[in-house]
Amino acid sequence: MAKPFPNSLAFFLLLISLFSSTPESHRLPQFLGKASRLPKTQNNLTQQYTYETRYFHQTVDHFSFTDLPKFQQRYLINSDYWVGPNRMGPIFLYCGNEGDIEWFAVNTGFVWELAPRFGAMVVFPEHRYYGESMPYGSQKEAYKNASTLAHLTAEQALADYAVLITDLKRNLSAESSPVVLFGGSYGGMLAAWMRLKYPHIAIGALASSAPILQFEDIVPLETFYDIVSNDFKRESTSCFNTIKKSWNIINSVGQKANGLDHLAKTFHLCGKLKSSGDLSDWLDSAYSFLAMVDYPYPSEFLMPLPAYPIKEVCKEMDNSPDGTSVLDRIYKGISVYYNYTGIADCFELDDDPHGMSGWNWQACTEMVMPMSSNRDSSMFPEWEFNSTSYAEDCWNQFQVTPRPTWITTEFGGHDYKSILKTFGSNIIFSNGLLDPWSGGSVLENVSESVVALVTEKGAHHLDLRAATEDDPDWLVKQRASEVEIIEGWIEDYYKKKKATFNM
Amino acid sequence: MAKPFPNSLAFFLLLISLFSSTPESHRLPQFLGKASRLPKTQNNLTQQYTYETRYFHQTVDHFSFTDLPKFQQRYLINSDYWVGPNRMGPIFLYCGNEGDIEWFAVNTGFVWELAPRFGAMVVFPEHRYYGESMPYGSQKEAYKNASTLAHLTAEQALADYAVLITDLKRNLSAESSPVVLFGGSYGGMLAAWMRLKYPHIAIGALASSAPILQFEDIVPLETFYDIVSNDFKRESTSCFNTIKKSWNIINSVGQKANGLDHLAKTFHLCGKLKSSGDLSDWLDSAYSFLAMVDYPYPSEFLMPLPAYPIKEVCKEMDNSPDGTSVLDRIYKGISVYYNYTGIADCFELDDDPHGMSGWNWQACTEMVMPMSSNRDSSMFPEWEFNSTSYAEDCWNQFQVTPRPTWITTEFGGHDYKSILKTFGSNIIFSNGLLDPWSGGSVLENVSESVVALVTEKGAHHLDLRAATEDDPDWLVKQRASEVEIIEGWIEDYYKKKKATFNM
Repeated sequence: MAKPFPNSLAFFLLLISLFSSTPESHRLPQFLGKASRLPKTQNNLTQQYTYETRYFHQTVDHFSFTDLPKFQQRYLINSDYWVGPNRMGPIFLYCGNEGDIEWFAVNTGFVWELAPRFGAMVVFPEHRYYGESMPYGSQKEAYKNASTLAHLTAEQALADYAVLITDLKRNLSAESSPVVLFGGSYGGMLAAWMRLKYPHIAIGALASSAPILQFEDIVPLETFYDIVSNDFKRESTSCFNTIKKSWNIINSVGQKANGLDHLAKTFHLCGKLKSSGDLSDWLDSAYSFLAMVDYPYPSEFLMPLPAYPIKEVCKEMDNSPDGTSVLDRIYKGISVYYNYTGIADCFELDDDPHGMSGWNWQACTEMVMPMSSNRDSSMFPEWEFNSTSYAEDCWNQFQVTPRPTWITTEFGGHDYKSILKTFGSNIIFSNGLLDPWSGGSVLENVSESVVALVTEKGAHHLDLRAATEDDPDWLVKQRASEVEIIEGWIEDYYKKKKATFNM
Repeated sequence: MAKPFPNSLAFFLLLISLFSSTPESHRLPQFLGKASRLPKTQNNLTQQYTYETRYFHQTVDHFSFTDLPKFQQRYLINSDYWVGPNRMGPIFLYCGNEGDIEWFAVNTGFVWELAPRFGAMVVFPEHRYYGESMPYGSQKEAYKNASTLAHLTAEQALADYAVLITDLKRNLSAESSPVVLFGGSYGGMLAAWMRLKYPHIAIGALASSAPILQFEDIVPLETFYDIVSNDFKRESTSCFNTIKKSWNIINSVGQKANGLDHLAKTFHLCGKLKSSGDLSDWLDSAYSFLAMVDYPYPSEFLMPLPAYPIKEVCKEMDNSPDGTSVLDRIYKGISVYYNYTGIADCFELDDDPHGMSGWNWQACTEMVMPMSSNRDSSMFPEWEFNSTSYAEDCWNQFQVTPRPTWITTEFGGHDYKSILKTFGSNIIFSNGLLDPWSGGSVLENVSESVVALVTEKGAHHLDLRAATEDDPDWLVKQRASEVEIIEGWIEDYYKKKKATFNM
């Protein structure tokens, strides 16, 4: 049995399958960055960028004085191009998100490419409770129960970055060096929030694909699945329709005698299928991830994929001979995602039933992003967000009660335009409209210095990836705008510093 | 035995005496608001302002998900003058500080007086761990040990206010009502910080006597005691000198046989004196408090005092007949503070040795405000802040380790001018230069909307007190400026709201 990239793949699926117990709440789209380990295929990438791996003695609870042991927070650092403290060399700080920091580092080529140009130091701190940065000494201990997971929150992570960078600068006598924040997806949300909450620490933030508005009812609850659906529809209406039809068929086949075996065979599953819902979740997550990584060139971010993979998926579904069943079409299409290299003989829906997901904890506490699926505009089954069953699931899974209005209380969100206009400055919200998370982000300029860079054909934090020869013009342009804006922040900062010196 | 206002007084002294174990660290000046109960003499004041007392089911830990019981946060509310949600009536939110909220409410007449003028609702939430707002059900349980005290922090208190006001507004459909923050002393720090950290919740803050720069080495460590000393020196150099001489005399008398009895007799103490240090601390705190309440008219904030009480203290010291000993002069002077009404027969230095102080906990965790006393410019004994012994004392007292650099990491402070200029807006820092806390506050305009209102002859948050017939012109003017600025914030807010509606 050969499976492509089982580690990363299984992890993604695991996240979703954990929520599959009740039909009302099984949909919980994930960001890309849930790989808790660097996929083996990307090991070669670590050689592409050089960095030192260090550990910082970090406080578990910044906002209270509960007597908890400190933990080792991992961070990657490179000073090769840094022009040093005397010339106030900038520091580029990537806000680590929900996964192994090395994985984000190798997939954030943009920051590494900028460093020499700006004479900047590069720092990639890892998010607590991910990768190696585990409170209580190990993942096993950290993920033991609700009490040990309690301090896995965005505010604590931001405080980690604030404390770490302040200490680092002090030790280097680099207090005057400007810090620029970078982040993609959840990391982009952290970058934007850090700029808002810690303006004394960072002069600006590039928040790529950061859905800071995906809370409560700030954006319509259907947005996410509507965008995924539209990504398919724009390639082919029949593809959209095939998928839309498939859910009922899967469901009804699954209810027949030997129906689950039939489904397992049709979809080449390695093991037994426990319920048709498991299969639907597996497909659902593939479509959502395809929308996120609908990149304009072949990529290997999650798994090896062709350029604009949704087009290829739809081609496979549409181009099957007349008379091909809906399920066979779905299988052919989905194989582009799960088995583009063709080396997989069969598929596992979930190979780590005992794992625990940090992101699921976060989604069950602060990061409640309500989503529905609309009967007409979505190709997914109709489904309405139900906060009660959501909370019940969270209780069953973690013995924790979500606080769905906390994020907007702490970071704002309602009436965000006037708020960002008055208080925010130096934030770039970059988004590609193919990315389903773009619907929860900031897509219009809010002020002169809180700007939106939107590309029609971009997907999930594409701009943060390393430049390639296949980059389309609009991507090259987007990155050039980002560089120009960041340059402006740094120049402004130097000007003000100079003015202070001369006073 | 009659003692004036033993509750409030003893409480202040207690705070200081708790730190009197080692000579290096006994100096820990307190704000005014440490009265955990409303002094009986001020009971009549509660009838002056009418409010409803309510309780909010509050989260103990906003930044983590430790499973802790909720607690009842008390808040006072008055809607008599509120013009309601449809007219977007403003909400005046006083950031409760380290004491009983009723005490602050009755001593913050300014806010009550403004309410009718602005058609505003008035809300006074109580700071957690003070007054009746006790996690774990009672003061006894809340103050049991470091673990129960753990969540007594400024960030948690700010989050309390944010959550409470957001909920209150939601329930009243008053999401569009602008919130203006008020606060004095530590409450003023909270108001300023809340405006910086929660700009989406409040449109501006009047931060009266808020020493947000009294951390690390942002202001010279001698500032506080130098200002106290100068307050005495400006009244009379001989008074300053008498006090400066007294410490060595007290110390040497205390070391003689029967010396402590002699001191106790000289100072009319009710009980035995355990060490000359206890007496010094008692005097030290009186001088510091005198500087804070050196108000231009007779007041009863801490205790009944004449107008400009330092002048009166110095008169008593200076006008004693030639040949009066230094200690007798000190006693005569200090009696103005401790016994202005003349009804006390003797004094207790500390009548509640088993009490615990919330502020001492805060000073031992986040609120590390390092202070020294300069040999030449200060009338207090020379003394240098020692962070090691400070931390040792905190460990001995609470089994907690201070985080002296945390406040500036979380809220900024270094390079505050350029930070406040770029990010802050709509903050008034009001200060009176007689107030020793003014040295740690913002005394210059930082930008068009972050302004300093400084009065030469004002003391600790005098502007927040109710208007009196004895108010000097400069005070009337200061308050008028505050009203005008706040009016501007609210008008601006309405204009922007209108622009949004018309868009």
